[in-house]
Formats: sequence, structure tokens, C-alpha cells
Amino acid sequence: MEIRVLKDIMESNREMASDIKSLLKSKKIYMINIISSPGSGKTTMIDRIISSLKGRYRIAVIEGDVKTTQDAERLSRHDIQLIQIETERFGGGCHLESSWIMKCFESFDLDNTDLIIIENIGNLVCPAEFELGDDERMVVLSVTEGEDKPIKYPLVFNTSKTMVLNKMDLLPYLDYNLDRMNEYLRRVNPNIRVFKVSSTKGDGMDDLISYIEENIKKKKGA
Amino acid sequence: MEIRVLKDIMESNREMASDIKSLLKSKKIYMINIISSPGSGKTTMIDRIISSLKGRYRIAVIEGDVKTTQDAERLSRHDIQLIQIETERFGGGCHLESSWIMKCFESFDLDNTDLIIIENIGNLVCPAEFELGDDERMVVLSVTEGEDKPIKYPLVFNTSKTMVLNKMDLLPYLDYNLDRMNEYLRRVNPNIRVFKVSSTKGDGMDDLISYIEENIKKKKGA
Repeated sequence: MEIRVLKDIMESNREMASDIKSLLKSKKIYMINIISSPGSGKTTMIDRIISSLKGRYRIAVIEGDVKTTQDAERLSRHDIQLIQIETERFGGGCHLESSWIMKCFESFDLDNTDLIIIENIGNLVCPAEFELGDDERMVVLSVTEGEDKPIKYPLVFNTSKTMVLNKMDLLPYLDYNLDRMNEYLRRVNPNIRVFKVSSTKGDGMDDLISYIEENIKKKKGA
Repeated sequence: MEIRVLKDIMESNREMASDIKSLLKSKKIYMINIISSPGSGKTTMIDRIISSLKGRYRIAVIEGDVKTTQDAERLSRHDIQLIQIETERFGGGCHLESSWIMKCFESFDLDNTDLIIIENIGNLVCPAEFELGDDERMVVLSVTEGEDKPIKYPLVFNTSKTMVLNKMDLLPYLDYNLDRMNEYLRRVNPNIRVFKVSSTKGDGMDDLISYIEENIKKKKGA
């Protein structure tokens, strides 16, 4: 019986994700779903993306956390649309679901939005299993987490279009083998595009932001 | 209906955890359940604990991963009892459950075991919700993950007896506020015992290992 119920949840999540995709298509909004381990530097990275793009594009952000509104507070200095989801209120959820994203849309002015960024719960397992209707799933991996994460958590790396390799500024202090990480990554996803950055120092962020901007423009022109 | 089924799973997990606790009591075995984010350095830390204690105590290890047997392979050079659980085979589980731990016990010689170490799935959310019947839940946090994890993932920090603050060797290269982390930690668990270590360099490991040894002896003498 557990399996039937679980399938129901997954199926209804997928249907809602498909509705979201259609809605984003009609509104010409580009949506990115960012997934990573806890503490990989997602919020700092998003902060830089917003700082760079907010003058030219209208941005909305959905912040997912088990508890606290800290991340939303950090981003609230920007003049953007911003909603925090605390999953503890929904039974301590380990991931975001598409019905919650659709609910957030009710508070957004979608006719005046170009880019939506979702910061998912810090977790490499469960968020990978729930489609949110986004254009791009982006996985963030810190070099401090070791080389083997792609093969240990294959689903999230396999289903992501891009990977941001973060905390590159710490590389000189680590015994880290970039080639090995790359070999593991290609094994689960040969086509994934990789951006190497330091979100705290800013190195490499320009390339990542240009890439996002290109995709916003493509979606607008589509 | 989802809620009823979920309660059934949690309830049966709790009952099995209670059976495990009784069994460990009768066999005088100390069991530690180690939980952390992906890539926090659990395996390296466990490797050092085994190296130090294997001459004096009989050790068994249960390695939990979504996929791969890498961690078990790393530890297999030690002459210990060792089982790898790959949760992908059970539907991609984001945590370990007590029924799987009990199943592992069938392969262990519990009459000749002093210490069992469980390395849970790299995830701060789901493993916190599943009791395994252990004597000690130990959460590992790396300084590279930032200060705010205790308040963002309160359940695992609230239910742990000890916290290992790892990667202390990287502190000089980070903008990390130890006092702030401590303040957050005390807010969710005023009584948690903290060990500061570098599992790669070995700093601080002696205190942690002495503490574990004390607890093995206490359990033997109980």
C-alpha cells in the first residue's frame, strides 16, 4: 500500500510540474531549480546573480528551508519578489514540491517576471526525485565535499543541466583531485555543463551569469 | 491516507529500534549513529577511530550510501566486520531504517562485538527522523558548511548527544564565526558535547576517541 500512495504523490507532483512548465512557457519566464548539499554556498551565489541581473531583468526568488527565514532575509535587501517556504510547517519536508511552487506563483506578478530562481532544500537525495517544472536544474557542489559525490548521488547529477563547482578559492588547501571528480561526473552525466566559481570571492561568476542571461533572452524570444 | 501510512512506517521503525536497543543492552555493545551532510568527512573520521581502537575492541561498521560501495572499500583494509547498505536498491532511500540495521545484525557475530558504528546517508533531514536504537547519535558538521546549520536543520542537532566540528584545519581560510555557530547550536541543544577535529590531519581525534572508548567500557561494565 505504501508504494501505491507514494506513486500517487509522485504522479500528482509530475502533473503539477507539467502545468508549471506550460505556464512558464506562456509567460516567457526562465526558471532555475538549484539543488545542493547543506552549506554549499547556494545563497551567496544567488545573491551575486541577483546583484548582477536585477537592473536588467525582473527577478523572483523562492527560498526553501526546513526551518528559519535567514536566507530570505539575506536576499531581502534586493528589490525583488521573494518568498520563503519553511518545510517544517508541512511536516519537515526534505524537498520542495511543485504544488508549493504553484502556490508561490499566486503571490508573484508573473506578467512582470523574467527569471525565477528556486533555492531548494539543502539535500542531494530527495529534491532530485521531485520535478518542479523548471527550465534548468542546477546542482551546486563544493570542492570541500570531495570528488565522489556524483557517483554517490547519481540522480541529481544525472538530471541536472549544469553543475556549479563552488569554493574554488579553497582548492589550494585541499587534497582534491579535479580530474577524478570530472571522471565521476562524466560517468553519470556526459553532457552536463560545468562552471567553476568562488561565490564568496566572485571568481568565475561572470561566466555563470552570462549563461543565465543568455537563457533568459532565449526564453523571451521563443 | 498518506498520513496514516507514514505513521505506520514511523511506528514500526520505532518498535524495531526499541528491539535493537534491548539486544545491544543484553550483548553489551555500544552503537553510534553518525549523521551529516554529504562530504563532511565521516568516512575519514571513522577510519581514524577504527585504526585507533581495533587493537583493543571488536568493531563492526554499517556503511550507508545511496549508491556505490566506495566507503566500505576504503574501510575494508581493517580486519573488522563491515556491511555496505546501498539504499538505491530499496527505492533510493534518503536515510537508514532500523529494520535494515537488524538485518545487518544477522551477519555480525554480536557475541564478539564491542562497538558498532553506523555511517548514515549524507543528509541532515531524513536520517534525523528515523531512530535506529543506537546509544549515541553523533552529528558531524564541517566548518566549510557555515554557521547556521543547527538552526536550519534543528531536529538532527537537537537529538544528537555529540557534535563533531570537522575540517578545523580550513578555519584560517574561511570567514567563519565560531561564537555564532555555538550560539545557534546552544539554541537548539544546550547540552550537546562538541569535539573540534580535523579528520584529515588528525587534530583533536584523540579526545573524541577517548570519549568513545569510555562509553564502550561503561556499556561493558553496565
